[in-house]
Amino acid sequence: MDNQVNNERIVNFLYEIGTMRKLMRMHRQVLLTDDMSDSIASHSYRVAMISWFLAKQEGVDLYKTVMMSLLHDMGEVRSNDHNWVHKKYVKIFEEEIDKDQLGTLPYPELKDLIDEYQKRESKEAVLAKDADLIDQILLLREYDWSGNKEASIWLYGKGKDKVNAQLARLQSDSAKKLGEEIYKINPSDWWNNLWTPNNR
Amino acid sequence: MDNQVNNERIVNFLYEIGTMRKLMRMHRQVLLTDDMSDSIASHSYRVAMISWFLAKQEGVDLYKTVMMSLLHDMGEVRSNDHNWVHKKYVKIFEEEIDKDQLGTLPYPELKDLIDEYQKRESKEAVLAKDADLIDQILLLREYDWSGNKEASIWLYGKGKDKVNAQLARLQSDSAKKLGEEIYKINPSDWWNNLWTPNNR
Amino acid sequence: MDNQVNNERIVNFLYEIGTMRKLMRMHRQVLLTDDMSDSIASHSYRVAMISWFLAKQEGVDLYKTVMMSLLHDMGEVRSNDHNWVHKKYVKIFEEEIDKDQLGTLPYPELKDLIDEYQKRESKEAVLAKDADLIDQILLLREYDWSGNKEASIWLYGKGKDKVNAQLARLQSDSAKKLGEEIYKINPSDWWNNLWTPNNR
Amino acid sequence: MDNQVNNERIVNFLYEIGTMRKLMRMHRQVLLTDDMSDSIASHSYRVAMISWFLAKQEGVDLYKTVMMSLLHDMGEVRSNDHNWVHKKYVKIFEEEIDKDQLGTLPYPELKDLIDEYQKRESKEAVLAKDADLIDQILLLREYDWSGNKEASIWLYGKGKDKVNAQLARLQSDSAKKLGEEIYKINPSDWWNNLWTPNNR
Amino acid sequence: MDNQVNNERIVNFLYEIGTMRKLMRMHRQVLLTDDMSDSIASHSYRVAMISWFLAKQEGVDLYKTVMMSLLHDMGEVRSNDHNWVHKKYVKIFEEEIDKDQLGTLPYPELKDLIDEYQKRESKEAVLAKDADLIDQILLLREYDWSGNKEASIWLYGKGKDKVNAQLARLQSDSAKKLGEEIYKINPSDWWNNLWTPNNR
Amino acid sequence: MDNQVNNERIVNFLYEIGTMRKLMRMHRQVLLTDDMSDSIASHSYRVAMISWFLAKQEGVDLYKTVMMSLLHDMGEVRSNDHNWVHKKYVKIFEEEIDKDQLGTLPYPELKDLIDEYQKRESKEAVLAKDADLIDQILLLREYDWSGNKEASIWLYGKGKDKVNAQLARLQSDSAKKLGEEIYKINPSDWWNNLWTPNNR
Repeated sequence: MDNQVNNERIVNFLYEIGTMRKLMRMHRQVLLTDDMSDSIASHSYRVAMISWFLAKQEGVDLYKTVMMSLLHDMGEVRSNDHNWVHKKYVKIFEEEIDKDQLGTLPYPELKDLIDEYQKRESKEAVLAKDADLIDQILLLREYDWSGNKEASIWLYGKGKDKVNAQLARLQSDSAKKLGEEIYKINPSDWWNNLWTPNNR
Repeated sequence: MDNQVNNERIVNFLYEIGTMRKLMRMHRQVLLTDDMSDSIASHSYRVAMISWFLAKQEGVDLYKTVMMSLLHDMGEVRSNDHNWVHKKYVKIFEEEIDKDQLGTLPYPELKDLIDEYQKRESKEAVLAKDADLIDQILLLREYDWSGNKEASIWLYGKGKDKVNAQLARLQSDSAKKLGEEIYKINPSDWWNNLWTPNNR
Repeated sequence: MDNQVNNERIVNFLYEIGTMRKLMRMHRQVLLTDDMSDSIASHSYRVAMISWFLAKQEGVDLYKTVMMSLLHDMGEVRSNDHNWVHKKYVKIFEEEIDKDQLGTLPYPELKDLIDEYQKRESKEAVLAKDADLIDQILLLREYDWSGNKEASIWLYGKGKDKVNAQLARLQSDSAKKLGEEIYKINPSDWWNNLWTPNNR
Repeated sequence: MDNQVNNERIVNFLYEIGTMRKLMRMHRQVLLTDDMSDSIASHSYRVAMISWFLAKQEGVDLYKTVMMSLLHDMGEVRSNDHNWVHKKYVKIFEEEIDKDQLGTLPYPELKDLIDEYQKRESKEAVLAKDADLIDQILLLREYDWSGNKEASIWLYGKGKDKVNAQLARLQSDSAKKLGEEIYKINPSDWWNNLWTPNNR
Repeated sequence: MDNQVNNERIVNFLYEIGTMRKLMRMHRQVLLTDDMSDSIASHSYRVAMISWFLAKQEGVDLYKTVMMSLLHDMGEVRSNDHNWVHKKYVKIFEEEIDKDQLGTLPYPELKDLIDEYQKRESKEAVLAKDADLIDQILLLREYDWSGNKEASIWLYGKGKDKVNAQLARLQSDSAKKLGEEIYKINPSDWWNNLWTPNNR
Repeated sequence: MDNQVNNERIVNFLYEIGTMRKLMRMHRQVLLTDDMSDSIASHSYRVAMISWFLAKQEGVDLYKTVMMSLLHDMGEVRSNDHNWVHKKYVKIFEEEIDKDQLGTLPYPELKDLIDEYQKRESKEAVLAKDADLIDQILLLREYDWSGNKEASIWLYGKGKDKVNAQLARLQSDSAKKLGEEIYKINPSDWWNNLWTPNNR
């Protein structure tokens, strides 16, 4: 294959995924948040890091798990993001997106990875999905921390029956344990022993 | 090692890197841009994808290159981002950051990866740095496309001697060729054959 | 029907459409704009005013035309907005949305109006759609005015064949003439004779 | 009248009201909110929809009530918005604004409608004003829901004597009943039976 | 005077002026800019620094000139900001504001300073006003630099007769010379000799 | 010295400090706030006003105290802002910044003032620093008021031992008393007797 052709396709792809930072995640609509920093790009970033830990703990392929996480919402460039209300009324032709977006790249690997993720059969695919859900729990804790009452309901439920609804969707043991821990630790605990008022 | 302890450290780490989406990249100060979508998190996301292609083209370890890209600016959580004016007046104790931030994790691999990146000796480390610079060129093209005159100067120079200053810093052949191609393709070319006014 | 039940449904409806101001119009993704003020709510507002003038000029029912404009994007609360790339990959079940969203209100009129709009048969429906497109031209002129190069391409085309592509989609004579006029008048002309440096 | 002249005036008017999305509502100053989505345009949009329901319930002219709501804050393009502190120190020459802004349009109807609204004598004018106040209550509930303590005070008062201060300003029976209902229903109740985790 | 009473009044005053950062400068409406960083607070900051240089060059009282600049837009907390369209339709009772806002402080000096500024008789008052206008020219140059066409018109006029309209309003020789220099120097020249790609 | 050279240096300086409004204060990272209005410029503005009151109460040089406050964070243009985590890992060469930024101005006074501030020996320098801390307390109260739980912890501590930690850092009697008063007065008390629902 001609190298120049390769690069033209790749550059267009890189511009395309650059727009992931302009796509706000749509739970903002129902959470009534003003957070403009939660884009598909910034979300996918933390999901990738979360998935690395899950893959490490479960002893599966680190590379594949991380790559699936980086790719898992990329199709939203061509479909937009949809929250849990939108899912009721919208059908997304994900296979077509994956074929047109990743299947036209000079290398077949990224298409293979998203196909594996969509099937949700391999351990890596399951963990990449768990990482996606874990990021949601982290974000809800952060929104709860900044005062959002709706985030609090999502985390703790309106009644007792909905408590831990977030955790119930997790599949892997590692994700379940990590999720429970997220409920216990506050979003600002990480710098408790780091801060100093003194200049260096 | 006690699994519970592992998870507490990991959760704190995940909250910590969640703040990367609150850290704006500081070239915004000198580019006078109002873009709030370019955070350390969203930047690192595209750098990871760019580095995958560079590693593929150069035939080196995909996993290591991508992981280094995901980690390459993570230390800025603890130092803040610094642009090319700030570098003149600020010394960042990166080794301490890497040790405290990644070296305290239950797994040593992330610390090893950032150490390899900082040395800039392995092919993977060089490509991860090239990917960082490629993202900058993409972003400048996007800012130029939305009218920013300063971005245009950065891309094309004030005089002839500064033309292609962005490309000169790239080390690998693959990055150089990719960089040249980015100058030729417009940020909106990617959807030229995709758009349709017809509903499905 | 019990009045209390009416009001409960209406209040839920009003909270629902309040989220239209949190839904950014998705051409922002391809226009690379940082404008956060162009929401489904603020867009629908100007469309309603435009449609009043079109209906006036064409001598059709003012009330129906304005109401259709206020309703024309309301379904996006439940589907999210989709730009011309997204249309290729997403199917929206608009009829279900209209039925669930407007068809459950205590009064049938709003559902009837959106049904008429969706058929695009009545003069009023055609004009409400024209008003939607006119708002797009106004916005592109405003983005072009603030420096956006992509907006300029959308307005004036890359080559000669695409010139006036925006105008070609308009159906009514009144909209065509209004559209041509928008190309001639600058976004800041309106206050030319209004400004004064003197305090009252 | 020459049609060309008509359109030039109308286009300037449409550019003018386009700036309503750049005008933030000024209660933000005293509510200390970061919500950038509450502009004069997005506010006027929901007021129009609220007023339709009030007019329907009271059995008055739907068209006139909705149009008055669309126009009710349009003059703020030329005066800026003023909150309840500003009212103490600023005199707005609304009649001059209405004359210059709406009275110069090729059709007299919009000027007639705002004149009727300003007099607050007709049932439609009273309901359009009630709709304006109802939108304020909805917004306060939304801000309270996202954690804002000042919004809570505005809704429920500092002491018992100020409870329901928001409701006391409403004139019509329909608005009073609707307002009471808004206090009972939470901003996120509308999608309780809509959400689904399943893709279509 | 009771010290406690002093402090209560002062604290309320400090909260009040804290809202200056929530008040956007209203030329944004006609410049169609998305810059959220230009508030009454950030504007007043640079005006104070500009006025120091003008006072230094003209050899007048530095303290009085700087203080007048810090106070010059403070009344807008109670009136909102008004651009050159708004001035035509709004009367602000500035004397009442100054009396209620500054005249009720435990110290009379701030009220005396704003009175002197409003009279525009002393050299210091003239220079503080010139500094206000100089900041406007700087900002227009910055907006022009980020692509805004309207800013360019304000700086250079639509025709030859409007060229240097910005400079014509300046009163002092020092401001006129400074203003001319601003037209010659680009917003990014300041860091030309500062930047370095090397870490310290 | 040639006047033209003076002005060129001054204009570059004014463009430089204009970027202070693009520099967000970095406690936002750990406070998880979405407030974009708290920039180095808007912060420095209120600090200057606070310091005027402290200087007045302590009977020291008003001019010097206010000027130090205006200058106290100006160096952050060249170093970026650093929060209490960053301080642990970053060394800022403030003396070099002060020399290059203020020491190159045509007038030596500003450099002398920042030198005096950095030594923290004079009463004026101590008060300017106290004013900086007082602004932080005011801001935390404002964030607490808009629902932020982290701000509440900073103000009132996690346990009893941390209560009033904010006050403990204040040096002067006037600042201590003012700080205590800030804890007692709510951010919206200032307009309690100002608001009116009646148009003028």
